[in-house]
Amino acid sequence: MAHGTEDLDHLIAMMAKLPGLGPRSARRAVLHMIKKRNLVLLPLADALQKVGSTVRECLNCANICTSDLCDICLSDKRATGQIAVVEDVADLWAMERSGVFKGRYHVLGGTLSALDAVGPDELRIPKLIDRIAAENVTEVIIALGATIDGLTTAHYIADQLPGVSVTSLAQGVPVGGELDYLDDGTITAALNARKAL
Amino acid sequence: MAHGTEDLDHLIAMMAKLPGLGPRSARRAVLHMIKKRNLVLLPLADALQKVGSTVRECLNCANICTSDLCDICLSDKRATGQIAVVEDVADLWAMERSGVFKGRYHVLGGTLSALDAVGPDELRIPKLIDRIAAENVTEVIIALGATIDGLTTAHYIADQLPGVSVTSLAQGVPVGGELDYLDDGTITAALNARKAL
Repeated sequence: MAHGTEDLDHLIAMMAKLPGLGPRSARRAVLHMIKKRNLVLLPLADALQKVGSTVRECLNCANICTSDLCDICLSDKRATGQIAVVEDVADLWAMERSGVFKGRYHVLGGTLSALDAVGPDELRIPKLIDRIAAENVTEVIIALGATIDGLTTAHYIADQLPGVSVTSLAQGVPVGGELDYLDDGTITAALNARKAL
Repeated sequence: MAHGTEDLDHLIAMMAKLPGLGPRSARRAVLHMIKKRNLVLLPLADALQKVGSTVRECLNCANICTSDLCDICLSDKRATGQIAVVEDVADLWAMERSGVFKGRYHVLGGTLSALDAVGPDELRIPKLIDRIAAENVTEVIIALGATIDGLTTAHYIADQLPGVSVTSLAQGVPVGGELDYLDDGTITAALNARKAL
């Protein structure tokens, strides 16, 4: 019992395992919560309980939701015939924050990876193929990270969808990016994909 | 609803307010918890609930505990006649991790601060004075931070305890510290407090 009570040790150990937290920040967060028991600790426990008991995967796109289908899959306004393929729900959220994409999503649940032994069967690619016909999809936008595994997965998906237009996010200089700080690969990609002003 | 459900938005907003976390790391932590619902999310909710319903302040030293008095105040082995005065429970935990101090603690709950309008009445100094007689205390070790407010508080406490030996933690070069990286104040303090080899 390093912190007075076993429950407290247990709580700190669990908080310390969350991504982005370590033992030190977990102790700090727990002390902060205890000091504000009614404002922070108990409401947070309730919120976790509520999310834990209601949240599940959308059966269609694997987004996080509280019913069989998520709001995006249920919305008529999002039935634009476009599906953005993302690796993870975090990437879906990032796309939604930009507010530009008006179609639907498909969360793969990972990328093909020879090193981690992730094959097509581990990803939600068959479900994506089913959705093409079911939702009259005309364009599949591959929005995976620009890594080797992301590119491999993009090419594999393009091969599996012969009748559909498959596009991918552009690569190039990020907004606000300075050339001096960019890596060679990004500059090469931006140069190769240069466009007329 | 930026993240699919209102409960989820609420949970992420609350996590983002914890010290050391921001919106981005809160999202990451929440997604991690949802992916490991039975291993992380629900146990964490239980642990928070349990700590929230059991934890309280030791009536004697203001340490965190689950009964009227904490284990340290209850232990006969810690009745050494020494009390270490710390600012916060986090500092008490830091002292306990070093494992060197065998006496009891007194958590002040802050330091005197003219800027933040913290006077002696806001701190637990009267209780400290009560404990001197009640626990046959012979030495009060001031273990406050080496800040202006910490030093002011140390001198104020020393003035309030005329019959007791009041000491404070030594100032100097930290273990593993290199002179080149130390500030002038620390080097001055270390030089003034030099000791014979």
